[in-house]
Amino acid sequence: MSVTHPAGFAAAGLAIGLKSTGAEDLALVHNTGPSHAAAAVFTSNRAKANPIIWSQQAIADGTAAAIVLNSGGANCYTGAAGFQVVHATAEAVAARLGVSAGDVLVCSTGLIGEQLPLDRMLAGVASADPTPDGGDAAARAILTTDSRPKTAVAEGDGWSLGAMAKGAGMLAPGLATMLVVITTDADVAAPELDAALREATRVSFDRLDSDGCMSTNDQVTLLASGASGIRPAPDDFARALTGLCLDLARQLQSDAEGASHDIAVETVHAASEDDAVEVGRAVARSNLFKAAVFGGDPNWGRVLAAVGTTAAEFDPYAIDVSINGVAVCRAGEPGEPRDAVDLSPRAVHVLIDLKAGGDSATILTNDLTHDYVHENSAYSS
Amino acid sequence: MSVTHPAGFAAAGLAIGLKSTGAEDLALVHNTGPSHAAAAVFTSNRAKANPIIWSQQAIADGTAAAIVLNSGGANCYTGAAGFQVVHATAEAVAARLGVSAGDVLVCSTGLIGEQLPLDRMLAGVASADPTPDGGDAAARAILTTDSRPKTAVAEGDGWSLGAMAKGAGMLAPGLATMLVVITTDADVAAPELDAALREATRVSFDRLDSDGCMSTNDQVTLLASGASGIRPAPDDFARALTGLCLDLARQLQSDAEGASHDIAVETVHAASEDDAVEVGRAVARSNLFKAAVFGGDPNWGRVLAAVGTTAAEFDPYAIDVSINGVAVCRAGEPGEPRDAVDLSPRAVHVLIDLKAGGDSATILTNDLTHDYVHENSAYSS
Repeated sequence: MSVTHPAGFAAAGLAIGLKSTGAEDLALVHNTGPSHAAAAVFTSNRAKANPIIWSQQAIADGTAAAIVLNSGGANCYTGAAGFQVVHATAEAVAARLGVSAGDVLVCSTGLIGEQLPLDRMLAGVASADPTPDGGDAAARAILTTDSRPKTAVAEGDGWSLGAMAKGAGMLAPGLATMLVVITTDADVAAPELDAALREATRVSFDRLDSDGCMSTNDQVTLLASGASGIRPAPDDFARALTGLCLDLARQLQSDAEGASHDIAVETVHAASEDDAVEVGRAVARSNLFKAAVFGGDPNWGRVLAAVGTTAAEFDPYAIDVSINGVAVCRAGEPGEPRDAVDLSPRAVHVLIDLKAGGDSATILTNDLTHDYVHENSAYSS
Repeated sequence: MSVTHPAGFAAAGLAIGLKSTGAEDLALVHNTGPSHAAAAVFTSNRAKANPIIWSQQAIADGTAAAIVLNSGGANCYTGAAGFQVVHATAEAVAARLGVSAGDVLVCSTGLIGEQLPLDRMLAGVASADPTPDGGDAAARAILTTDSRPKTAVAEGDGWSLGAMAKGAGMLAPGLATMLVVITTDADVAAPELDAALREATRVSFDRLDSDGCMSTNDQVTLLASGASGIRPAPDDFARALTGLCLDLARQLQSDAEGASHDIAVETVHAASEDDAVEVGRAVARSNLFKAAVFGGDPNWGRVLAAVGTTAAEFDPYAIDVSINGVAVCRAGEPGEPRDAVDLSPRAVHVLIDLKAGGDSATILTNDLTHDYVHENSAYSS
C-alpha cells in the first residue's frame, strides 16, 4: 500500500508518455489532512534540478498538501523553460486538488538536459485521480532503471508510516539521495518532522553509496496528515522513521544497477563517527575493491589502500580487516589465508577495526560489475 | 635507452621468479657519478609500503647512488618481516655496487599483503650486472599489468634526461603516482632537483586520475650523475623535466587497464588553478560519465552532476560544456544536439567553462569499460 497505508492520504500513478516503454511515469500523492505538516531533505549537489529549486521554496513554511513526481526526465539544466514546467505543473496540481500551489512539492527523475513536455504533464495531472488505494501505482510510476518498486510500512501505537522510494544509479548522497516519499497519519508538527527526518536520513540514505555519483534531483519528503489523531512520543516516532528509512535504503542497495553483491562496510573502534563514515565511504568508492568483490577476490590490500587515503585517526600498522568473518589482516599484517573467504553469497561484510576509539558506522555499497558498465554505457539515463 | 640514455648510468633488468610468467621482475639502476644528487616524491597514501618507508629515509639527505625496483609484489602490509626484506635488499645492492646502503632507494609493485621471497631478492641482486645499455631491460622489469614499457628521453644543451615508468591501475595520485625513475647527466644540486621534480609532478602525474584509486607504493625518483659536466639554467632544466613527465603521464594514460578512451578534462576560466583541478578530478571520478563515454554517449548531464559536487566557484547556470568540440551545454541549458558528438576516436576532449576567473587545468583520465572490470576482478594485483 506504500504511501496510502496511513490514513489521510490518496495517491495515483499513471502513464502520460514520458517513458518510451509506456509504463506509469507520473505519481501524485495528496495529503487530505487534517494536518499538512511536512519536511524534506534535498541533494547537496550544487547542480540542482528545477523541481528541487521549487520544492525547497515550497517546503520552507513546513507545510505541503501534495507532491507530484515524474520519471522519464530530470528537468535539470533545462533553464527558465524547465522551471516554467515545474511552476505550471504545481499550479495544475493545485487546481486539480483544490490546494495552494505553494503547498505542492515537485520531484523529477530521468535524463538531465532534456525538456519535459509541458502539455503531457498538464494533461496527466488533470486526469489523475488519487485514491486511498493508489499507493502501489504511485510507487511504480517513480521508477527509472529500478527493476522493482520499493515500498515499506511501519506500525506505531495507533498510527503508522508508509513509504515509496526509487533509485538504482547515482546512489551517493551528500545529504539525502534518490526520490523517497514517506507518509504518516501521526499528528507531528513540522519542526519535529524535520528533526526526525534529518536524523533518520543521516544514518540510512546518507550511508548508502552504491556508485559514488551524487544526483541532481534527490529529495526525501515526509508528509504528516494527523488523521490518526495520535501524537506519538518523539523518540517512538523517530525510531520508527529511522527503521523505515533503513529498510528502504537496503531495498535500494539490493536493486542497484548491475550489482551482484550487497556490501556492508562496517568500521569499528573509530575515534569518531565521522571517521568511521569517512573510512567506510572511501572503501565504498574504490573501484578496484568493488571489482575484486565481483570477481570473488577478497583483496584486502585494496581495502587498506582506500583506508589510507582518509584523514581518519588510525595507525596503518594496527588495523584489522575481516571479510565475511575471516580475519585476512591482523595488525597490518597478513592473517588468515584469503582462500578461506567465501564471496559466493550476495551479502558481503567487510569489518575494519581502526583500534582508535569507540565509534562505529556502516556504509552500504555494491560491487562493480560488467552489468553496471553495460547499463550505464548502453542507455542514456 | 630509457634511464641509461644520459651519461653516468648503468642499469639491469632480470627475471628472478617473482612473476609467475617468468618475465623480468627486478630492475637495478646505478648512478656512476660523479654526482649523486637525487630527489623523490612519494604517494600521500597513509598506508605506505615498506619500500616507501625505507626510501623516504634514504633520500632525506638528497643523495642516492642506486635504485632497485621489483614487480611481482608490493611489500605492503607485510609487517616487520617485510621491512627486513627491504633492508636486506638495500644492503645487498650496496655490497654489489660498492656504495652505502643508505644511498640505495627501493621500490616495489604488485599484490599487497604478500611477503617477497628474500632469497630470490638477494640472489637476484647478487647476479645483476648493470651496464650502460641496460635501460630497456630495466624498463621491462618494472611492469605489472602494463601492456608495454614506458620510456622517454629529452635532450638539453649538452645534457639529457632519460626515464622509465610503470603503472596501469591504481592510477590516482595524491602527490606522485606509479613508479618512475628519471635520470640526468646534468649537474644539478639536490634542492634544485627537488623543486623541479615537485613542480613537474604537480602538473603531470598529479593530473592523471585513471581510476580514482591511490596506490600505496608510488614513487617518482630523479637521479643526477653530473657526468655531462654541464649545469643547465634552472628554467631550462625544469621545462625539459616537466615535458618529459607529461610525455610519461600520457603514455600511462594510453595504457591504463581496460581503457578504450583517453579523456582529457579541461577546465577553463576557473577562479583558481585549484578550482580547475578539483572540477576536473570530480568529472574524472564519475563512474557514470566514464561508462557513458565507453558506450559512446556524450552524457553531459553526468559531467554537470559531477561538477556540482565540488566546492569550486561557479554559477551552475552559467556553465558551458563542450565534448569533442560540440557545445552540448551553453549557460546551463541544452546546446547542440548530443548526436553531433563523435565519440568513436580514442581521444576525448571535455571542455568545461566555469566563467569564474582566469585559471585552467587539464586532468587526464580513461573510460570505465568491461575490460577494466574484467582485469580487476579476474586477477589479484
